[in-house]
Amino acid sequence: MSGYYTDEVHGKHEYFDLGNFALTTGYTIPNARLGYKTVGTLNAARDNAVLAPHMFSGTSAFMETYVGEGRPLDPAEHFVILPGQFGGGFSSSPSNTPAPFDRGQFPLVAIADDVIAQHRLVTEHFGISTLRAVIGWSMGGQQTYEWAVRFPEMVPRAAAFAATARNPVHNQIFIDTWTELLTSDPAFRDGFYDDPAEVRLGLQRLAVSFSLMGLSAAFFREELWRGLGFVSSDDFRQGFIRGYFAPMDPNNLLAQGRKWRASDISAHTGGDLAAALGRITAQFFVVPFSEDLFFPPEDCEADCAQIPNGHYRPIETPMGHFGMFGLRPEDPAAVDAVIAEMLAS
Amino acid sequence: MSGYYTDEVHGKHEYFDLGNFALTTGYTIPNARLGYKTVGTLNAARDNAVLAPHMFSGTSAFMETYVGEGRPLDPAEHFVILPGQFGGGFSSSPSNTPAPFDRGQFPLVAIADDVIAQHRLVTEHFGISTLRAVIGWSMGGQQTYEWAVRFPEMVPRAAAFAATARNPVHNQIFIDTWTELLTSDPAFRDGFYDDPAEVRLGLQRLAVSFSLMGLSAAFFREELWRGLGFVSSDDFRQGFIRGYFAPMDPNNLLAQGRKWRASDISAHTGGDLAAALGRITAQFFVVPFSEDLFFPPEDCEADCAQIPNGHYRPIETPMGHFGMFGLRPEDPAAVDAVIAEMLAS
Repeated sequence: MSGYYTDEVHGKHEYFDLGNFALTTGYTIPNARLGYKTVGTLNAARDNAVLAPHMFSGTSAFMETYVGEGRPLDPAEHFVILPGQFGGGFSSSPSNTPAPFDRGQFPLVAIADDVIAQHRLVTEHFGISTLRAVIGWSMGGQQTYEWAVRFPEMVPRAAAFAATARNPVHNQIFIDTWTELLTSDPAFRDGFYDDPAEVRLGLQRLAVSFSLMGLSAAFFREELWRGLGFVSSDDFRQGFIRGYFAPMDPNNLLAQGRKWRASDISAHTGGDLAAALGRITAQFFVVPFSEDLFFPPEDCEADCAQIPNGHYRPIETPMGHFGMFGLRPEDPAAVDAVIAEMLAS
Repeated sequence: MSGYYTDEVHGKHEYFDLGNFALTTGYTIPNARLGYKTVGTLNAARDNAVLAPHMFSGTSAFMETYVGEGRPLDPAEHFVILPGQFGGGFSSSPSNTPAPFDRGQFPLVAIADDVIAQHRLVTEHFGISTLRAVIGWSMGGQQTYEWAVRFPEMVPRAAAFAATARNPVHNQIFIDTWTELLTSDPAFRDGFYDDPAEVRLGLQRLAVSFSLMGLSAAFFREELWRGLGFVSSDDFRQGFIRGYFAPMDPNNLLAQGRKWRASDISAHTGGDLAAALGRITAQFFVVPFSEDLFFPPEDCEADCAQIPNGHYRPIETPMGHFGMFGLRPEDPAAVDAVIAEMLAS
């Protein structure tokens, strides 16, 4: 157990009890739970809920940074549900599930399982029959696609930032890269370490690959780390990227990584991606970041062209995939503009 | 010692004895040697030599694939010198240098040292005072830049394919990535393995990162491995990328990687890159590959703009950095066209 996945670090969480949760992957998580946060108030008509699942390595606290007075996700107007995901550290995860599903033997989970669990939270717990919108970044965007295809009647609007409907092969190779880096640490012990801090070398190695792929060549060419208060690219890599991953649980990251790698909404249609995208009825905003090395704009644009009500809104930024982190003020402003357009659609 | 760095695998090599070679990095390699090959005949005026150094992980046999009857590098017209480099396996390298400079204790070498050694071969052994041209790809391109800045009077023409004058920071992070992957193998033993084949896990891990960065997202999106005879992307990654690196010597790769990482012609001018590029008198052809993740076209274009007689000739290819491998016929044809233009300039 890590002290990282706590309310002290990420703010107060609620938990929805899923019981013995049967995964689409053929396992059952006993006494499963979904962690979540909410901001704002569900109105009497129960029609003002926006669901905002989080990205790989993140928590429900992340998308909360896009909620605020006077912003598109204004809690005075919207009830924002910030659900967790399996492996996220608050929901059922390798770090918090008892044997025989603990640590290195946590079951294989799919993006679909996250969405099915979130659907139960939304319908059973909150009694909501239609969401106002679903939005997410990266793995949160993969979940957004899954929501829009699996439950189209509940999703009139959606925005997927830096995500695709089917994870690109090149992106899978990136996941293979950081997986090799993380698990190469002898202290990883096939996932049966006692304390995640023992795997610090593996987490440091993983951080190298996120420095490589998370931003862009332009970020380093233009020395944009200066604007973040770092004195060198090495200082940035150590202070920001390595520091970000250092407190996390390796098994949690791997459980999420397997979901990310296999993400593919065409599982709904026997591998026919066009058919799966054709099921989306939402006003669906596809929003790549221009220099993204995880989810290239070309892939996002190809998805969008096959969505009946697809709206392609690329955001220019040298921050690459990390455009959502708000590393420069232009980026969250551009994201907010798309959210506003989407909510008004 | 590996059976890989042999004439049986790479064709007949010659060797130039460098004696006790003082490196710019502050070490001396005892009884150093430079391996090389030649194609064609040096004419009586000694003015038809083209120097073609090779890339990271390659040997003198590689650029030989660009030499041929009826091609721009026609051996009937040109005397093509294909020099090795320190760490390349034929020249003085961790794999062939006796203790106390063997294996994990091979000295730090710079691109400048390769070029100084090659200059001695060209002048002392062949009695050449002016080359017709220098051309190279990747680390061979880094050597091309070094030649043009260090010995401008000897280089009237040059072409650097997929290379920059100063290695980009983002590219350094890539080198850090594969270095971590390679050296994470416990069998690496800080470089003091007995047989490179023991480090097969490290070489396999390294291959993952070259699958990620060597080609492009487009290569995998468009399934271009089909044209190479593979049945899946995994088949390609195992058969081509992993197979390519498997027989190599890890210490040799690391010695080359350190040179690659530190490459910077502004070392000639106290860090002033514009001043260093300004010293180039050659008709200098800067040739990026459009999807290159190692040396982005933007960096190449910025270099070219500061070269007095710079000619920017980008080549469009989904093969990324590996555009030089001739994975589709359009690529070597485009490379040949630039070589022809350069030789005629």
